[in-house]
Amino acid sequence: MKKIINDATAVVDEMLDGLTYAHGDLVERINESGIIVAKNQTKGHVGLISGGGSGHEPAHAGFVGQGMLSAAVCGAVFTSPTPDQILEGIKAADQGAGVFLIIKNYSGDVMNFDMAKELAEMEDIEVDFIIVDDDIAVEDSTYTAGKRGVAGTVLVHKILGAAADQGASLSEIKAMADKLVPQIKTIGVALTGATVPEVGKPGFVLADDEIEFGVGIHGEPGYRREKIAPSKELAKELVMKLKAAFDWKKGDHFALLVNGLGSTPLMEQYIFTNDVRQLLDEEGIVVEFKKVGDFMTAIDMAGLSLTLVKLEDSKWLENLTYKTNTIAW
Amino acid sequence: MKKIINDATAVVDEMLDGLTYAHGDLVERINESGIIVAKNQTKGHVGLISGGGSGHEPAHAGFVGQGMLSAAVCGAVFTSPTPDQILEGIKAADQGAGVFLIIKNYSGDVMNFDMAKELAEMEDIEVDFIIVDDDIAVEDSTYTAGKRGVAGTVLVHKILGAAADQGASLSEIKAMADKLVPQIKTIGVALTGATVPEVGKPGFVLADDEIEFGVGIHGEPGYRREKIAPSKELAKELVMKLKAAFDWKKGDHFALLVNGLGSTPLMEQYIFTNDVRQLLDEEGIVVEFKKVGDFMTAIDMAGLSLTLVKLEDSKWLENLTYKTNTIAW
Repeated sequence: MKKIINDATAVVDEMLDGLTYAHGDLVERINESGIIVAKNQTKGHVGLISGGGSGHEPAHAGFVGQGMLSAAVCGAVFTSPTPDQILEGIKAADQGAGVFLIIKNYSGDVMNFDMAKELAEMEDIEVDFIIVDDDIAVEDSTYTAGKRGVAGTVLVHKILGAAADQGASLSEIKAMADKLVPQIKTIGVALTGATVPEVGKPGFVLADDEIEFGVGIHGEPGYRREKIAPSKELAKELVMKLKAAFDWKKGDHFALLVNGLGSTPLMEQYIFTNDVRQLLDEEGIVVEFKKVGDFMTAIDMAGLSLTLVKLEDSKWLENLTYKTNTIAW
Repeated sequence: MKKIINDATAVVDEMLDGLTYAHGDLVERINESGIIVAKNQTKGHVGLISGGGSGHEPAHAGFVGQGMLSAAVCGAVFTSPTPDQILEGIKAADQGAGVFLIIKNYSGDVMNFDMAKELAEMEDIEVDFIIVDDDIAVEDSTYTAGKRGVAGTVLVHKILGAAADQGASLSEIKAMADKLVPQIKTIGVALTGATVPEVGKPGFVLADDEIEFGVGIHGEPGYRREKIAPSKELAKELVMKLKAAFDWKKGDHFALLVNGLGSTPLMEQYIFTNDVRQLLDEEGIVVEFKKVGDFMTAIDMAGLSLTLVKLEDSKWLENLTYKTNTIAW
């Protein structure tokens, strides 16, 4: 393992110090905790929280700020934050109108965010939540019952965050989330495993000419290994999986996110995006919004994921382009 | 080589198509050329151009847009664009007040931008330029006489771009550039080499426990190889080199850029930033502006660079925080 770190057991702590130093105009870290909170919250607005294990940077702390999250709760690498930590995040995000939790579908996160919700309710903070399960690659996985939550979660932050910034109530945000999340679907391909610093070696190893479709953002198994193929063929595999999952019709409107998994050069991300464009054009899909870059990573994994959102509500597109002031959107 | 590409000879072409598809609201590609131009330019303002070989994404096309560059000229990977290409970029950026060229100090770029300048002047476009040579690692290098131009170039785009957006004249921009560039210094450390797609293997190879200080953004040799050390020690090496180069005094004011070289996780970039913070604090340096992320990469190189700008003019800091609408700032 060759990494720019000091102590493998302190990477999250030192990273959060570096992040708040670099972006002290936007966010602050509560004491020495894993809570990164927006500097300027609006009284009377719903607070929006996400989080989970670290190692997915810029998610989630990079999306704290105006128009997205009120706070992010950062656990140890690939490890859910504790209910106490999440409760502290809820309190930091509470501006008197309730707090909404955006939870990726991992058993640890679901359990701990739920316990934190109960703890907050005992302190008279109104809390509601959504579980994001956008990864269509596999049903059930190493840490998940059902489908995993991956890069599409960032679009949930964005769309709900804009609603919260415009003063939507907790029940309005819940209703939007319930309608939105089933329309977000993601699938990825990995070229390498990810190395957790405390482990010191990749969670899985692919041969020099091998890729794996459907790998999770913690290195959970995907659905097929094969020889590396041209970008066009990788794009075709992922687009056709999404086509089957959405059962789309010519003329349907979508938003698109191409997400690098950590060590994928932008050059490759744009080449892949260009291949996706050609396939979606052939399908007659209308892409109203596009985003390309590293948003939800798996530490140093090479590979990328493709997310599509079927734009069933015109408000979602408005919210995707709504003004935002965060580190990484 | 395991990369998400189709044809190694077509990576720049396909990348630029993907980039303009993803960001068609901000930029457009002129015909099938390597010129990426801002969609909304202002008549009567100075046009600002940069560019060079591709492989440094998001530089330079990611910095085209309001408040930064008017156009970027994208050559083949690690290869200077031709004078004809650069001339086309100059014409695209010309809004009647002249065009200013920001050139990284590589012999090919310097020669070709200079020839393009002469060609443009024959067509009655007023052109001036600055050569950026911020890399303090070595004097002279594989492709360079003098010092190399690296990540600090992006801060030149930003500071001069804000001036151009505010209506500064060509001579005012030239004067600002002449004063600014000597106050920008950068030094980096590489953990791996970079693989040019057409070459198919890394330009140099480091052992699994080895790093090299002062490597260039095309893999040019640095000044020392040694065993990987903790982030704190890497930070100390780079900060002390910058201290010697600036000969700074306690209380001096600086801007800071930590730049990932392509496949360096944000986690490591923030940990390193935190270590730099501690060293600069000990030195009594006042850091007025901070930026962390991938700005000037070397394709898939692992490693990072540290840039400091001595803020000798208060206008520079204003310009660093001036409103900007680009893909990657």
